[in-house]
Amino acid sequence: MTCISIVSGGLDSVTMAYWLANEGYVQRLLSFDYGQRHVKELESAQRCADALNVAHTVVDLHSVTPLLWGSSLTDLAVDVPDGHYAAPSMAATVVPNRNAIMLSIAYAAAIADGAYAVAMGVHTGDHFIYPDCRPDFIKRFAAMERVAAEGHIVEGFRLLTPFLKVDKTEIARQAHLLGVPIADTWSCYKGREVHCGQCGTCVERKEALHLAGVADPTEYMA
Amino acid sequence: MTCISIVSGGLDSVTMAYWLANEGYVQRLLSFDYGQRHVKELESAQRCADALNVAHTVVDLHSVTPLLWGSSLTDLAVDVPDGHYAAPSMAATVVPNRNAIMLSIAYAAAIADGAYAVAMGVHTGDHFIYPDCRPDFIKRFAAMERVAAEGHIVEGFRLLTPFLKVDKTEIARQAHLLGVPIADTWSCYKGREVHCGQCGTCVERKEALHLAGVADPTEYMA
Repeated sequence: MTCISIVSGGLDSVTMAYWLANEGYVQRLLSFDYGQRHVKELESAQRCADALNVAHTVVDLHSVTPLLWGSSLTDLAVDVPDGHYAAPSMAATVVPNRNAIMLSIAYAAAIADGAYAVAMGVHTGDHFIYPDCRPDFIKRFAAMERVAAEGHIVEGFRLLTPFLKVDKTEIARQAHLLGVPIADTWSCYKGREVHCGQCGTCVERKEALHLAGVADPTEYMA
Repeated sequence: MTCISIVSGGLDSVTMAYWLANEGYVQRLLSFDYGQRHVKELESAQRCADALNVAHTVVDLHSVTPLLWGSSLTDLAVDVPDGHYAAPSMAATVVPNRNAIMLSIAYAAAIADGAYAVAMGVHTGDHFIYPDCRPDFIKRFAAMERVAAEGHIVEGFRLLTPFLKVDKTEIARQAHLLGVPIADTWSCYKGREVHCGQCGTCVERKEALHLAGVADPTEYMA
């Protein structure tokens, strides 16, 4: 069974790809280059594809970027906020409608490929800030696509979100169990030489590995 | 009130833009270049923007195109079928999941702009072939976005589809009433020098203008 897996190169999506490989899915990894300043994550997605020996396609969405000003992930005039990932200031890291855009394109690829599933690594820790990571969004997106893709998608098609109801600590635990090369994944929103250790996603990464009791091989600036 | 209007440059979407202008909306036109062979339609969208004196953005989705093989609109190895637009052979003109992709990106622009609406010119004639033009799709897409964009989109936001329940003949009538320069719109899927007059969308265009009793200024090859 084939699956189009949306893999950014972060800990969550890379662990998901390993989890799906372990479940027996034949995957095609899909990444998105939308002008994020942490474009380094795409190299990490490529390392994941190489390790799993699967195809990897990067979809260039640079022309969408000018539509998305106002987010610190793409607008260099906006600072990436430091602090806890559940803090209100993290709303500045929201790229408008990102998951609907990425999922729509992944579905197009799934239809063209005759794939059995699309997969995305959202988890409960994302729910604080990102409305498009919540179970209700996933449910409605799948319902919308059942109509949109009617007659064009394989019977029994599924939108897989294996981590939708678990937190990042559980993902860190799974990463350890599945032998994910954690040092090869990239989380930091700042996208410098090494992880900054202070932005929301670095704080979240450190915390999850610590709480899972998994050694953290990441090099942090602070 | 501002509206992000998806305008391909065809008769339907250009007429929709004139209709929205007449309703008092301040528009920003959004077109998509996804490698369609009838890329000439984008010039027509630009003429529409010029005539209405509104902004026009073309989103480059070329990097999505390799995911979409199998459609005659983007794959040069597949012939554009001639014949009636409601014939089964017209399924070859389906670009997988196109409307979900375009609407997702339009919503991102609307969120970033603080716009009041997104508009798309689907009509009943599209329903035969394209599942993502049906009222149920539009309803579910809007429902999905109410969750995805919660807290980020203006209150009372609307997905406008003014032609959802009318046919192309009614659109042709509206085009005439609104003074749309019909000769400036582009329908033909083949994208040659002039309209071919034989592909599904040319047949549909001719028929609609004829049934509406509107003079057809289009130059056709046949």
